[in-house]
Amino acid sequence: MKHYSSIYNLNNLQKTVKEAIELKGKPLEYEALGKGKTICLLFFNNSLRTRLSTQKAAQNLGMQTIVMNFGSEGWQLEFEDGAVMNEHKSEHIKEAAKVISQYCDIVAIRAFALLNNKEKDEAEIVLNNFKKYASVPVVNMESAIGHPLQALADAITIEENKIINKPKVVLSWAPHPKALPHAVANSFVEMMQLQDVDFVITHPEGYELNPEITKNSMIEYNQEKAFENADFIYVKNWSSYKEYGQVLKTDSEWMITANKMKLTNNAKFMHCLPVRRNVVVTDEVIDSKNSIVIEQANNRTYSAQIILKKILENL
Amino acid sequence: MKHYSSIYNLNNLQKTVKEAIELKGKPLEYEALGKGKTICLLFFNNSLRTRLSTQKAAQNLGMQTIVMNFGSEGWQLEFEDGAVMNEHKSEHIKEAAKVISQYCDIVAIRAFALLNNKEKDEAEIVLNNFKKYASVPVVNMESAIGHPLQALADAITIEENKIINKPKVVLSWAPHPKALPHAVANSFVEMMQLQDVDFVITHPEGYELNPEITKNSMIEYNQEKAFENADFIYVKNWSSYKEYGQVLKTDSEWMITANKMKLTNNAKFMHCLPVRRNVVVTDEVIDSKNSIVIEQANNRTYSAQIILKKILENL
Amino acid sequence: MKHYSSIYNLNNLQKTVKEAIELKGKPLEYEALGKGKTICLLFFNNSLRTRLSTQKAAQNLGMQTIVMNFGSEGWQLEFEDGAVMNEHKSEHIKEAAKVISQYCDIVAIRAFALLNNKEKDEAEIVLNNFKKYASVPVVNMESAIGHPLQALADAITIEENKIINKPKVVLSWAPHPKALPHAVANSFVEMMQLQDVDFVITHPEGYELNPEITKNSMIEYNQEKAFENADFIYVKNWSSYKEYGQVLKTDSEWMITANKMKLTNNAKFMHCLPVRRNVVVTDEVIDSKNSIVIEQANNRTYSAQIILKKILENL
Repeated sequence: MKHYSSIYNLNNLQKTVKEAIELKGKPLEYEALGKGKTICLLFFNNSLRTRLSTQKAAQNLGMQTIVMNFGSEGWQLEFEDGAVMNEHKSEHIKEAAKVISQYCDIVAIRAFALLNNKEKDEAEIVLNNFKKYASVPVVNMESAIGHPLQALADAITIEENKIINKPKVVLSWAPHPKALPHAVANSFVEMMQLQDVDFVITHPEGYELNPEITKNSMIEYNQEKAFENADFIYVKNWSSYKEYGQVLKTDSEWMITANKMKLTNNAKFMHCLPVRRNVVVTDEVIDSKNSIVIEQANNRTYSAQIILKKILENL
Repeated sequence: MKHYSSIYNLNNLQKTVKEAIELKGKPLEYEALGKGKTICLLFFNNSLRTRLSTQKAAQNLGMQTIVMNFGSEGWQLEFEDGAVMNEHKSEHIKEAAKVISQYCDIVAIRAFALLNNKEKDEAEIVLNNFKKYASVPVVNMESAIGHPLQALADAITIEENKIINKPKVVLSWAPHPKALPHAVANSFVEMMQLQDVDFVITHPEGYELNPEITKNSMIEYNQEKAFENADFIYVKNWSSYKEYGQVLKTDSEWMITANKMKLTNNAKFMHCLPVRRNVVVTDEVIDSKNSIVIEQANNRTYSAQIILKKILENL
Repeated sequence: MKHYSSIYNLNNLQKTVKEAIELKGKPLEYEALGKGKTICLLFFNNSLRTRLSTQKAAQNLGMQTIVMNFGSEGWQLEFEDGAVMNEHKSEHIKEAAKVISQYCDIVAIRAFALLNNKEKDEAEIVLNNFKKYASVPVVNMESAIGHPLQALADAITIEENKIINKPKVVLSWAPHPKALPHAVANSFVEMMQLQDVDFVITHPEGYELNPEITKNSMIEYNQEKAFENADFIYVKNWSSYKEYGQVLKTDSEWMITANKMKLTNNAKFMHCLPVRRNVVVTDEVIDSKNSIVIEQANNRTYSAQIILKKILENL
């Protein structure tokens, strides 16, 4: 594996999940592997879990970490080829990516969707230009359309918590006051399509994800019906894809409640966090013993660590 | 010791002061102790000394450090139980504290008083919620009402500089143009009450600190009288506690001057820094040979290091 | 060497360049040298290359690194002697410099020219006050009037790329929409004056650099004539020195183009970056095989590393 920009960069997903679970039991086992190696974490957007867990993962592997908030600490980047740079952007991605990758052995990048231009977001301008120009492996710490470190942590969490071989996993949309990107939902859908699970997506009409991504998955517009017999309820808000970046619905009808959870097969509750309590999910559900959101967040460390380990082994 | 949220978490203060002074002579002696361990420093407010000295202390102990400016790099936190989170706060402290503490072995927090609501400040919402929900030890890097790492550094500095067994220590208020919290003064009072010193607090009327904290200490409203025979003059501004967060007085009458220092027993001048020259204290006093503010700041490293050492030994 | 504030702190420049090139071949050779030592990188201004390459250099030498954005994370500093600090500045440089240098073994500082007061900029208030009050070596990561780490990286790059013993090196001004400091150009001029090169400066009239710095160098106002037979074209914008901080000219007449490069002796193209494409230089030139800007940026690591190595050896 060179880059980790999508879950499709992993050639043996089941094996990777197992390896991550092993790593969790002996996190410092490979601390010689990253000795003398440096990872740069570049943040174009805010981060809590990704910022801390990826640093922790790198340190567990003996790597040096350099963290940079690109917007506030560096220069504004130009991404257009041939641009006449006479306005507020001081540096072109071509130079930035080539230069940064000379100072580290792996570069990890967070750059969210802007949600105002579908074509530009889908072009993954920041991530893809880093992949194009960097001379070192690039890791996606959530890009415009994918969050594969999160999806791998999710797969680890399901593997650890499933009690039947082929659990029913439901991805449910839930309300949120602000327009959120599709990255987490996209990568989770892609991940579930490759797992041995019974997978259902449920959301209000108008909230269809990119049909190219969901085309092999079942969509059920009736949330309560979707929840029946579910073993895992994975909740996430996203803005409309069709009416790109719009918030069409904010009432609490789709909020996850204890009554809805009763329709399931004693399902575990999952969310990538941060989560807005009593908007996305009631306190009762997230504070219940079936909520595994904290463990899911903990697995972010081992998701990042197994990826960095594979990249380091391949350097 | 699990948490270090107040000086009362230390069960043998005199011994701790001595141990810190020993550590100062051999700061790298225990660098194996923190190997493979990580501390997260979370800043909800600005910091210079605390930011640098706590990192240095952790590194002296062989720990990895992860620093995060919570406000600008993470998500805005909700602290109310049962809140419907449909406005600008993206994450509840319950998740944040539980999640962060999975990525580190110790978490240290700076969160100042807001000075607009006494009850809320005294509830120590940030610190106490971290203590409540985190699964790892929590260190107070200045909270709404206390700054115990500073108070320990102060005790170390007095121990190193005293020339009689029971010195007279005066905590004097001094003017400042902005409303400042009570945290440093509170912890210093608590610390002095446990030391073998002759302790006096002096301030203008209306600037009484929380009477619950000062009830066993002598208050002298006449600054010049308080200074007589003092061995240490510890200076700090704070806003009014009664008229909570108000600045009642900004004239230079209470500024520390060379003439006032002449009333003392050749006293050492102390201040936690940052200090506003020629407002809180004249250049002449802070630049004099009796000023030990730089050494006092240096002791912040060993104050933090002895605390982290005790926590690490107890993990 | 104690401080590295200007290239004149190096007593054997040719030897230092050779040592840096050797270090580049074995960057981890001296990682025991910095063990248990800490460098604080203090940024009063934004940075990309300097931020990352100096951290990388320090880590290659086994040092701990602490990075701080002074403006946003610390307190605003007062620099005037005798100031009555009753406005927005919370801390005096005297305390800040003395205190910070107690927490580290080397302190590195970036503080740009403000370009609104020539005398103040030339007084190098931030850098010189750190040198005056700090108790540890101070490294200049670009000050108001110099950028000696850049100049050393430039000398390394020329040494590696020259194909004749005494190459012709041209420093050419180029247009830019914003007022930029003179620091990079100043240090490059000083460096070239000490190298065995045929050195020419070219710029429009009115853009003369400080004549004290350029007095021993040739100035040619005709850019095309200057380019004739050049082996290296080093490009940089700066604002007017005479009409201090003013932008007198923004048209593209002085932009570096392929046609101008044809006048040279197949010259290498150099720029310290960030560079505005198609304003300072055309895509065609910077993307050509003769452009060595990426390699030049890479040498920032070894420029910083040889300086830190010399300072560490002298501690």
